[in-house]
Amino acid sequence: MSTLQETIHQMGKQARAASYALAQLSADEKNEILRAMAASIRSDAANLLEANALDLAAGKEKGLSAAMLDRLMLNEARIEAMAAGIDQVATLPDPVGQTMDAWERPNGMRIEQIRVPIGTIGIIYESRPNVTADAAVLCFKTGNATILRGGSEAIHSNLAIAEALGKAGAPAHAIQLIPFTDRESVAALAGMDKWLDLIIPRGGKGLIETVVSLARMPVIKHYDGICHLFVDAAADMEMAVSLTLNSKTQKCGVCNALETLLVHHEVAAEFLPKVATALRSNGVELRGCEQSLTILPDLIPATTDDWETEYLDLILSIKVVDSLDAAVAHINAHGSHHTDVIVTRDEANAEQFLRSVDSACVFHNVSTRFADGGEFGFGAEIGISTDKLHARGPMGLRELTSYQYRVRGNGQIRG
Amino acid sequence: MSTLQETIHQMGKQARAASYALAQLSADEKNEILRAMAASIRSDAANLLEANALDLAAGKEKGLSAAMLDRLMLNEARIEAMAAGIDQVATLPDPVGQTMDAWERPNGMRIEQIRVPIGTIGIIYESRPNVTADAAVLCFKTGNATILRGGSEAIHSNLAIAEALGKAGAPAHAIQLIPFTDRESVAALAGMDKWLDLIIPRGGKGLIETVVSLARMPVIKHYDGICHLFVDAAADMEMAVSLTLNSKTQKCGVCNALETLLVHHEVAAEFLPKVATALRSNGVELRGCEQSLTILPDLIPATTDDWETEYLDLILSIKVVDSLDAAVAHINAHGSHHTDVIVTRDEANAEQFLRSVDSACVFHNVSTRFADGGEFGFGAEIGISTDKLHARGPMGLRELTSYQYRVRGNGQIRG
Repeated sequence: MSTLQETIHQMGKQARAASYALAQLSADEKNEILRAMAASIRSDAANLLEANALDLAAGKEKGLSAAMLDRLMLNEARIEAMAAGIDQVATLPDPVGQTMDAWERPNGMRIEQIRVPIGTIGIIYESRPNVTADAAVLCFKTGNATILRGGSEAIHSNLAIAEALGKAGAPAHAIQLIPFTDRESVAALAGMDKWLDLIIPRGGKGLIETVVSLARMPVIKHYDGICHLFVDAAADMEMAVSLTLNSKTQKCGVCNALETLLVHHEVAAEFLPKVATALRSNGVELRGCEQSLTILPDLIPATTDDWETEYLDLILSIKVVDSLDAAVAHINAHGSHHTDVIVTRDEANAEQFLRSVDSACVFHNVSTRFADGGEFGFGAEIGISTDKLHARGPMGLRELTSYQYRVRGNGQIRG
Repeated sequence: MSTLQETIHQMGKQARAASYALAQLSADEKNEILRAMAASIRSDAANLLEANALDLAAGKEKGLSAAMLDRLMLNEARIEAMAAGIDQVATLPDPVGQTMDAWERPNGMRIEQIRVPIGTIGIIYESRPNVTADAAVLCFKTGNATILRGGSEAIHSNLAIAEALGKAGAPAHAIQLIPFTDRESVAALAGMDKWLDLIIPRGGKGLIETVVSLARMPVIKHYDGICHLFVDAAADMEMAVSLTLNSKTQKCGVCNALETLLVHHEVAAEFLPKVATALRSNGVELRGCEQSLTILPDLIPATTDDWETEYLDLILSIKVVDSLDAAVAHINAHGSHHTDVIVTRDEANAEQFLRSVDSACVFHNVSTRFADGGEFGFGAEIGISTDKLHARGPMGLRELTSYQYRVRGNGQIRG
């Protein structure tokens, strides 16, 4: 083993020990520590700004884009938001210890299924330093020990944040930050399934792909959102325009923004001109299928790539479909199984859509932008899972727990 | 792509299409098909025996052990048991469509969390041909399409069973058996995360390790059961002897059999001679730690390997510990997080043990042998997961499902 591997395995072993200490803490004890973490972030603000200035200077020297530098940047408002976020997590109910199910067997054994922490979680992320606090705090709240591995651009900021969190009285090694930022540290983390129960990569597709190909433990993936909105023949036209506009333009650089609009051919001639006017007046570039071009000849012709592209930009692809079934088939074949919407006044059509679309979130008459832990009322979100196992769609605190069967008897043996 | 890869990817694509057809079936429709599958297994009994005879002859020629040949062997009773098992699955409640949670948001959106099939599941298994029917049928019941890849020893039997299941009117490609049995077919299956949502390896540690290192999709693992029973200072001695004996000897070759006995030092002198007599009269070989040797000098001295060995045999390792905490620490460090038991009359000690042991099943005063889907009342079991994500411990039908958020509104947009 290299020194780097040894260091990371040692951190893994420490995380496992910390997880056992964390599992013994009550909700009140954890919340008190969380409030101390928030206070520590506030009182360390000057340190954080100083560390962040080093990262920003290095980033400028490296020629990072303005957008990248903005993602990297901390200021007093952002530090306060980080601390306020931690205080908010302290107010949320703790899922650990909840009884998920309980029953008695004919032989008198009582079985309980109880939520418990997962144990140890690795978080691999890119340039945003606030992820250090956000992710670690959600894992802490649910009794999990974390090993964080952030990007090289934010290393000074990340170390300063981890140091601030570490002063709040949590069990030793509950939150650890890997001081290395090279690729080998990702490989070391992804290989140690003895010490790490789960890896959550937070970042672009490239990062997730790397982690998936290396990881021996479960990975919860937050892949693309190629989200659709289908305007059914029985749609309220005004509502369909409003939902399309909100889904596409309320915030276009996020995974729950609309990327493809599907329109039933019976209403295409009426709907497309209306929606095109509304979208264009909001600066959206429109790309259309052949059939939509017969109605709106000034659309940019869409290519097959457009049906599988997450633009994350003010661009929308438009396709006219012959039926609800064709819309469902298009979504299941080309979408990313994230969030898809039907707009219709026909309840039967809505139910058929919701039952047939293979996506984490299927919506009837609401904007795609509601696919979000906060909007669902989870109080906190670790991400939106595109996996089907363990957690699907918006992930709150509950999704950071596992369970355990606790069985009580009075000497039962198996015959 | 090689021809083999192309064939397997084609099967994956077909499985995905089948999964959408399966998701539309009602519980009654699925149950009717299941009963037709059972009938088909019965009416094809002669074919199955003929195919099985080819496998048995090849196995004898290859020099398979008597135990291996027995695992491979089908007879009329085993075929009837397979069919009866399918009929039984038809009687179980269908988890698909169940509402797991439902709530309304302040803006009037109604959110439902609904159980849905996972989608497509790969099952990779070894020599037992009955797994072909058992695994495929549980996946079918829960609306999942399966791709089965059995071992080479049972290929003729597996093909005959899959053929029989295929006559029962299920959607096309709902159950597919890979006709190849080489390693490359495992690699092809494990690589196609576009078409396969989950892989479940059913077999020994070597097979699971191979699948884990190759798979890009989630894997549910059924690793070893290194199960412990801790005799607390406050244990009822008679109950402790009975539970030890049952846990070790009722069936010793299975993952929920006892492998290590931990005894509180305060009761070791009283308990060890009693339990040793009972175990030895049942043919159990005993290996002890130094401290236990001072009480029972004729024990075989245990080595450090003994604490991490799943004997699957009439062998038991024994360790005297100083406290409940020491027992917990030993279990968490050396066990396999499967099933662990405390025997005690002290409720506080029991609760501390259940809360502190990091295992799927933690038991108070019952035999380890109850860690079983059937004994839990699940009606069917696909295995006992040693994972912490998605499914932990005995897995029934519910654990073969995912979920989806269905949201209904009346035009809500995000501000």
